[in-house]
Amino acid sequence: MSLYLYDIPLSKAQACFHSALEEAGLWRVLDAELIPLDEKALGRVLSEPIWAKISSPNYHASAMDGFAVRAIMTTGALPSVPLSLEIGPDAEYVDTGDPLPEWADAVIPIENVESLDERGEITTDIRGPKTIRIRGAVAPWSRVRPLGEDIVATQLVLPAGHILRAVDLGAIAASGYDEIKVARKPRVAILPTGTELVPIGSKLKAGDILEYNSVVLAAQIKSMGGEPTRFPITKDDFDLIGQRVQEAAQGHDLILLNAGSSAGAEDFSAKVVEKLGTLLVHGVAVRPGHPVILGTVNRESEESTPVVPIIGVPGYPVSSALTIEIFVEPLIAKWLGRKPNELPVETAQLTRKINSPAGDEDYIRVVVGRVGDKLLAAPLSRGAGVITSLVQADGLVILPPGIQGVEAGEEVQVHLYKTKSELEHTIFCIGSHDLTLDLLSQFLAERDRRFISANVGSQGGLVALRRGEAHLAGSHLFDPQTGEFNISYIRQYMPDIPVKVVALVRREQGLLLKHGNPKGIKGLDDLSRSTVRFVNRQRGAGTRVLLDYHLKFMGISPEMIQGYNQEEYTHLGVAAAVASGRADCGLGIAAAAQALDLDFIPLFQERYDLVLPKKYADDNLLAPLFGLLSSASFRDAVSKLKGYDVSVMGTVILEDK
Amino acid sequence: MSLYLYDIPLSKAQACFHSALEEAGLWRVLDAELIPLDEKALGRVLSEPIWAKISSPNYHASAMDGFAVRAIMTTGALPSVPLSLEIGPDAEYVDTGDPLPEWADAVIPIENVESLDERGEITTDIRGPKTIRIRGAVAPWSRVRPLGEDIVATQLVLPAGHILRAVDLGAIAASGYDEIKVARKPRVAILPTGTELVPIGSKLKAGDILEYNSVVLAAQIKSMGGEPTRFPITKDDFDLIGQRVQEAAQGHDLILLNAGSSAGAEDFSAKVVEKLGTLLVHGVAVRPGHPVILGTVNRESEESTPVVPIIGVPGYPVSSALTIEIFVEPLIAKWLGRKPNELPVETAQLTRKINSPAGDEDYIRVVVGRVGDKLLAAPLSRGAGVITSLVQADGLVILPPGIQGVEAGEEVQVHLYKTKSELEHTIFCIGSHDLTLDLLSQFLAERDRRFISANVGSQGGLVALRRGEAHLAGSHLFDPQTGEFNISYIRQYMPDIPVKVVALVRREQGLLLKHGNPKGIKGLDDLSRSTVRFVNRQRGAGTRVLLDYHLKFMGISPEMIQGYNQEEYTHLGVAAAVASGRADCGLGIAAAAQALDLDFIPLFQERYDLVLPKKYADDNLLAPLFGLLSSASFRDAVSKLKGYDVSVMGTVILEDK
Repeated sequence: MSLYLYDIPLSKAQACFHSALEEAGLWRVLDAELIPLDEKALGRVLSEPIWAKISSPNYHASAMDGFAVRAIMTTGALPSVPLSLEIGPDAEYVDTGDPLPEWADAVIPIENVESLDERGEITTDIRGPKTIRIRGAVAPWSRVRPLGEDIVATQLVLPAGHILRAVDLGAIAASGYDEIKVARKPRVAILPTGTELVPIGSKLKAGDILEYNSVVLAAQIKSMGGEPTRFPITKDDFDLIGQRVQEAAQGHDLILLNAGSSAGAEDFSAKVVEKLGTLLVHGVAVRPGHPVILGTVNRESEESTPVVPIIGVPGYPVSSALTIEIFVEPLIAKWLGRKPNELPVETAQLTRKINSPAGDEDYIRVVVGRVGDKLLAAPLSRGAGVITSLVQADGLVILPPGIQGVEAGEEVQVHLYKTKSELEHTIFCIGSHDLTLDLLSQFLAERDRRFISANVGSQGGLVALRRGEAHLAGSHLFDPQTGEFNISYIRQYMPDIPVKVVALVRREQGLLLKHGNPKGIKGLDDLSRSTVRFVNRQRGAGTRVLLDYHLKFMGISPEMIQGYNQEEYTHLGVAAAVASGRADCGLGIAAAAQALDLDFIPLFQERYDLVLPKKYADDNLLAPLFGLLSSASFRDAVSKLKGYDVSVMGTVILEDK
Repeated sequence: MSLYLYDIPLSKAQACFHSALEEAGLWRVLDAELIPLDEKALGRVLSEPIWAKISSPNYHASAMDGFAVRAIMTTGALPSVPLSLEIGPDAEYVDTGDPLPEWADAVIPIENVESLDERGEITTDIRGPKTIRIRGAVAPWSRVRPLGEDIVATQLVLPAGHILRAVDLGAIAASGYDEIKVARKPRVAILPTGTELVPIGSKLKAGDILEYNSVVLAAQIKSMGGEPTRFPITKDDFDLIGQRVQEAAQGHDLILLNAGSSAGAEDFSAKVVEKLGTLLVHGVAVRPGHPVILGTVNRESEESTPVVPIIGVPGYPVSSALTIEIFVEPLIAKWLGRKPNELPVETAQLTRKINSPAGDEDYIRVVVGRVGDKLLAAPLSRGAGVITSLVQADGLVILPPGIQGVEAGEEVQVHLYKTKSELEHTIFCIGSHDLTLDLLSQFLAERDRRFISANVGSQGGLVALRRGEAHLAGSHLFDPQTGEFNISYIRQYMPDIPVKVVALVRREQGLLLKHGNPKGIKGLDDLSRSTVRFVNRQRGAGTRVLLDYHLKFMGISPEMIQGYNQEEYTHLGVAAAVASGRADCGLGIAAAAQALDLDFIPLFQERYDLVLPKKYADDNLLAPLFGLLSSASFRDAVSKLKGYDVSVMGTVILEDK
């Protein structure tokens, strides 16, 4: 059964791959190997159950330092009725762990005994006494670790399929083993292909793409318990790729061919698989990850199995990583004989509407955190090329085919990459973007807090606070009527919510221009020139409010500005647009110009505040953040950014009762 | 500040150790090292933040296979109003990832285009067309991944102290790195000492102790991110141990001296530390783990720091492992610059009363699972020598000093080693012990279920079911009045609870005797002989009920039996007592005799049932268990145990409405 069409449902694609492997005798635990029982066994998977070969302890052992005795001989001893036992026939010194003499059945701890020398005098030489005096009876088998207390020979110590942890190694050793049988590590060949690819660390020219998928793939395989081999980059050449695949088919259990799995002019993966073996599936209805190829490749030489599974992994880094989680992890689990990884699932409330193509199984990366009593899931970039979305992701929301989207505020099931306690240390910041927030994130990471900032503009931040979707918002909304920042907007967007407002910085806003200012731009006046392409911030951004205010004041209408509708969500986004030539100028902060080596014309100074509902002001979660506002090292770091004034930092602008 | 006394409170001991390290300049992140960015970097800790050196993509890239165009040139195209663009000046073919031509600002996907050859005919050669025909306008920057879409140069990609995962490596590579600075792995010397110790795998004689602590310690250190070095076993000799410690002090960051940390005759650790450096703490009020030593050792040669911290680790395996979690993990975390491990905490209900010494910080290992809507924590063996209690543990309950115990049914906070979803796969079985349960556990492990059985005897199991503390109970309670097994007891102990009872096996009960039967025991009559030492099962065990019934019938009173009050909780426990000579005989099942190579006199046949509240009968959790009862491979495995009859297996004995 081969499925050549695009958009095969995921479950069907998996079943097809599975049954082909089953048929080839490859859907089973790989052979076992015998390895020494040491720390290198950590994380390996037992291929056989451990049945105890010996008992532990394997003799009756003293559980204390003291004197081995016959319990019956101590009968009658009382604090007021001491009783003497002769060393030799009736009592014998034992250290913890020593075997009990054959005749003994209990131990009296050394601290409960008076040692007497030959003259009947008390001695401190525990090895020397002739007699001991006791003032209490002991029960049989007290202070003794009987044979088999921990492990009885023949009992099941650990089942096959168990992933070895540190303490397991001890229990296995105690059961009489010094070697163990574990599943052999699956050997996975990783073949990066693409004429445009260059090794990581290369100096790039336009069109070059850093080949880092193979690094991520190798690390994923290693994390899952496999043994990755990274091949060098192969050009987009049908014959060369074919040769590489045949080479990899020897001595590997699985081939990952990255990428060329789509249907473009230079996408040879499907054709190579077709030529060298069987193309089972080309294209699966998952997003991201559509152009997945599943197949098998015939082996040239005679090895244990005549075919090797091959997966054509899509080129976009997010698609690539998710393809491995979806298709490779269950296979490696099967081969190792362990349970497939299963992410814990929690219910969370979605902060933002998401749309989903109806036919696809849709994997949406989200940041998760607790705000008040709500667990929130904030969707990250959906772009298959945005690997930082996987880095930031706390989990995945998986929408099955048929669902076209989820509204903001609805509940979703999140498959979590992190533990819940890690999420409890997350500070959700939303609103306007400022470079200081990146620094804050770095400083807070050292203080056991994860600082997540979502850029939705100043107004969006205040709205999100009202909805209970963040702990605090960054805002720099200028009110021309009052000449004040933020306060009137806070009252408008968050009525009835007691707040605290703390100043973070003063900063310069101005025009970001290409180095050397080739268009000779001098101020906002120039935006109306037909040859000047502007890049704007999104609606609701403080910078946009500022721009609109000044444009109105100057009588320039938005229609007169080329690119007014071209929106970016961050200062760095605007700077990048200018640096790349997509626009000639944009309004933004000095630090963004400095970051991308742009020219900057300062226009205004503004205050950037942190706004938070009063109820979070004294929360332990936020304490390290407020601590930083008065820390010299943090202030220093911010001062080094261009255009920042930290003198206001930490000033309380407003605090409701 | 040195604390020589025993029973130093934990927090004080930690503070003392911490401040000594601080003073020696050792409470800081270790030096960084530069390593290549590949899969070996997994799990390492960033010693510097990653700020992006380049943007990704670092040019405007086509997001699709298609034609690069100027968006403005597409204005007016409609399905009914096609528009032609000339290849060359107005359109250019681009693969996914290709840079956009300087003049272009959008991409039209290939599937939305009709390619025309020189004659104006439709062609399928995507490289060949002279013109393309479009039937829709596109917006500027559609199907384009703008420069910086993923990463903008200078942005913070990952903070220092971050533990590297697979996807992080991709993001770091995309930011322009091919090497990274990570914290050097702390080098930890592990010194096993003890004249009684023999290497793992050794053939044991009485008094020999397998030296496996160093294996567990090395694996713990490795899991935490350190680099362990295991030294060979050193005898209990003050000078030899001193030499070893001085040797280890060169080139290591930490020395773990195991054991000899107590105050016995051959416990030299404290004296060695005193001689070679500073003894800070000897004895901490934690249980298990009392005899911990904290100190520093002076270095002979001139290295970066004049002293090396040393920890005297107690010899009992549970104490040893917990000492590392308590004292070493925070130190390794500090040295690596990462957050200390923090176990997630959940509230659970304790199944059994626990007592605790008032002065100690008490670490209690528990098994955790969900039964109905309750999360339950069942205490495991408290013995410091019982390493299987750590293997089975799902978490720790930590009782602070001052708390003398917790009642059954009370809520406790459990620090979990496992994820909650792992616990959801746990089947709690309680009641009578049978060797079949071990097999069941092994078979269920392969079917994604963890089977935990607690041995409290048949009656105890029924009581636990009534209290909602388990999913099912194993029971073999004979009722002489009805001649039936279990039913009348179920009605008595679990009135008003609808149940299902399924037969597991028929099995033989009889007398377990030392090989060769040296005392010439023939039946229960012989138990009253004064020279015969018996070992009993605990009150409430089905086997005990059976014994008492027959003794009464035969007119033998318990006082006539030597060892009647000597109780074991499992059949294997009884067998071990006989095998070791602690007793001459005991009542138990044939399989236990077979396991420890004992003689066996069969006396009775009995039925062993699984009892479960009706509400769990159709629970998906238990489905694999019932599946096994009719599986040939499971029945075969049970049949191989001596004295078992599987013909009844799976028969429904009783099913309430």
